Amino acid sequence: MKNRMNCFRKQMDVSNPQWETAVIFSKINIYYFTGTMQDGMLIIPKNGEATLWVRRSYERALDESLFPNIEPMKSFRDAAGDASKLPDAVYLETEVVPLALYQRFQKYFPFKNVKSVDAQVCAIRAVKSEYELSLLREAGQIHRHVLEDLVPGMLREGMSEADLSTELFSVLVEEGHHGACRFGMFDTEMILGNVCFGESSIYPCYFNGPGGKLGLSPAAPVLGSRDRKLRKGDLVFVDVGCGVDGYHTDKTTTYMFGSPLPQYAMDLHNKCVDIQNEAAAMLKPGIAPSEIYTTIMNGLDKEFLQNFMGFGNRKVKFLGHAVGLLIDETPVIAAGFDEPLKEGMVFALEPKRGIENIGMVGIENTFIVTAKGGECITGDNPGLIPVY
Amino acid sequence: MKNRMNCFRKQMDVSNPQWETAVIFSKINIYYFTGTMQDGMLIIPKNGEATLWVRRSYERALDESLFPNIEPMKSFRDAAGDASKLPDAVYLETEVVPLALYQRFQKYFPFKNVKSVDAQVCAIRAVKSEYELSLLREAGQIHRHVLEDLVPGMLREGMSEADLSTELFSVLVEEGHHGACRFGMFDTEMILGNVCFGESSIYPCYFNGPGGKLGLSPAAPVLGSRDRKLRKGDLVFVDVGCGVDGYHTDKTTTYMFGSPLPQYAMDLHNKCVDIQNEAAAMLKPGIAPSEIYTTIMNGLDKEFLQNFMGFGNRKVKFLGHAVGLLIDETPVIAAGFDEPLKEGMVFALEPKRGIENIGMVGIENTFIVTAKGGECITGDNPGLIPVY
Repeated sequence: MKNRMNCFRKQMDVSNPQWETAVIFSKINIYYFTGTMQDGMLIIPKNGEATLWVRRSYERALDESLFPNIEPMKSFRDAAGDASKLPDAVYLETEVVPLALYQRFQKYFPFKNVKSVDAQVCAIRAVKSEYELSLLREAGQIHRHVLEDLVPGMLREGMSEADLSTELFSVLVEEGHHGACRFGMFDTEMILGNVCFGESSIYPCYFNGPGGKLGLSPAAPVLGSRDRKLRKGDLVFVDVGCGVDGYHTDKTTTYMFGSPLPQYAMDLHNKCVDIQNEAAAMLKPGIAPSEIYTTIMNGLDKEFLQNFMGFGNRKVKFLGHAVGLLIDETPVIAAGFDEPLKEGMVFALEPKRGIENIGMVGIENTFIVTAKGGECITGDNPGLIPVY
Repeated sequence: MKNRMNCFRKQMDVSNPQWETAVIFSKINIYYFTGTMQDGMLIIPKNGEATLWVRRSYERALDESLFPNIEPMKSFRDAAGDASKLPDAVYLETEVVPLALYQRFQKYFPFKNVKSVDAQVCAIRAVKSEYELSLLREAGQIHRHVLEDLVPGMLREGMSEADLSTELFSVLVEEGHHGACRFGMFDTEMILGNVCFGESSIYPCYFNGPGGKLGLSPAAPVLGSRDRKLRKGDLVFVDVGCGVDGYHTDKTTTYMFGSPLPQYAMDLHNKCVDIQNEAAAMLKPGIAPSEIYTTIMNGLDKEFLQNFMGFGNRKVKFLGHAVGLLIDETPVIAAGFDEPLKEGMVFALEPKRGIENIGMVGIENTFIVTAKGGECITGDNPGLIPVY
């Protein structure tokens, strides 16, 4: 924890030498810095000790966290102290803090300006410690076991996507998954991930990823459809998160249920597996994500690109993304991410290709950046696992 | 949909006669006004037709929604039009919209001030139409069936809270639950609700309700504990949401596993059931929530109040809350909510009482406000169901 806080301060000193106060509101980042996920705020002054102010539950925060300064608060007033000493600007997680929360905060902490601390926190969270890597490896082992060993035995003709979703959720939790599947993107609800039979996996949805899904209903497009039942000949697409103590791996496995897919679909799938392996070999310190993206994309022909990383006009412009406390962390393997990779970063690579009348083929696994290239921690099964 | 939009405009005309433009960003409210939950924004001008601008997926929005004006956008720029015509203020969901999203929006829509539209949207959502009530009744029937009929058969000695959580989630979805359990409160993650054995239900947690819970881990305090196994003599506390097509009911049922609870615990429980019924009888148009709260609270003695609506220093200052597209809607049955109730409002009443060494007893059901008092839609079992 001390190391995380020191890294954060260094990052701030470099990017915003004038900073004086940062305040963390999101439970994910409070957890990152303190080891507890209670409701409150973490005030980090440039000079002086940080304090975790807890609205609820103070007792649980004390019990779970070794953070040296934890104080109870009933309202922001309790934490406000001497407002006349406040600097002009406060650094907040602007991607997370709603306008009204900021307005309530500002009543007692009358900062004039808000600046963003999102990029700085993301940057330090991107490089994982040995301890964080050990949790990710553990998540990866559970993930591998469930998707590669157990899912084939769970597929039954006539079961619905919703059935497989809830059964899979139960098995993941039973095997050690931490139960949540967390995203940072605004108003993004996932619960489990995408569990799709046949063309469901190319059905339009709001989620900013290559895969599609029907979900349970327009009012709750989560899990999978009750109406779409598993039929012989279906491509089965399972793209779910798995986590241990907060840290997620991301993995997609495909299955052929009842009979093989046509050869052209298998060829497109195998091409995605090759792309994953080619990109993984480049996951070395010093290479920029944008360089990996460009190298891979430049090597692909026009016809393949037509439905690569999506379907129709719903294609995404990335090949992978960092993972950790959230599934959608930065950096992203995409244009514009020009900072070189560092050892200990962790990425999900997910080359996928939509096919009309069939669905989404392709693969996703989670890799640790090492000097020898990406080390896969979620298994090496190439997918399209035959279940017949 | 037309009626919802008209009600919203009327509400705005009354509360903010000067309003010119409101913009809705949250998926819940976009769904409320348009019937689809895609990523984008709904621009509502005071004079003129509202337009749903969809980033992703435009096709799905067209497919799911009968809203007359749906337009695709790649960025806010596409929707910006003539910025020179913009009024000074924009009305946003300030409890939901993060600072950074507002800043990106403001680049293309240079409004000078932000005002809140939260209370107005909550006020119109609070009164349900016949169609909405029919969905809530359906959710209530599923809820009743699962908690009153099925859970007793699911309890097994030695099962963990996590086991019961995932099994219950599967059964709820199988019976028709829409899969999500949605809260509006900042950074609140629920998935299912609280599933607790024994004292878990009074264990401190960040959630702003009377019950407590251990959850899976400090990093993911969701579902229930893997370590806490069901033992003979345990009080079992199940407080979960259930929804149909977006509309939730809220219900808590308790069970006595293996043997009866001591008489004093049963007495405290029965007192909570009496309180629920007394408050339910007052759920009539014209009575203010604050009046119900005061009437009930004034009738309770000091000893009972000690751990009423919580345990120790973690007590909440309400007896119930409106439910609908979110579980934590307003009005709340609490001090300060002085607007009289209207027919068609829907409330969860949840008198609960913590007991040292035992857990949380009490009850929760969902009621429709009618001229005859609250109509219960989630069953009439008084709880402490014996399972032995």
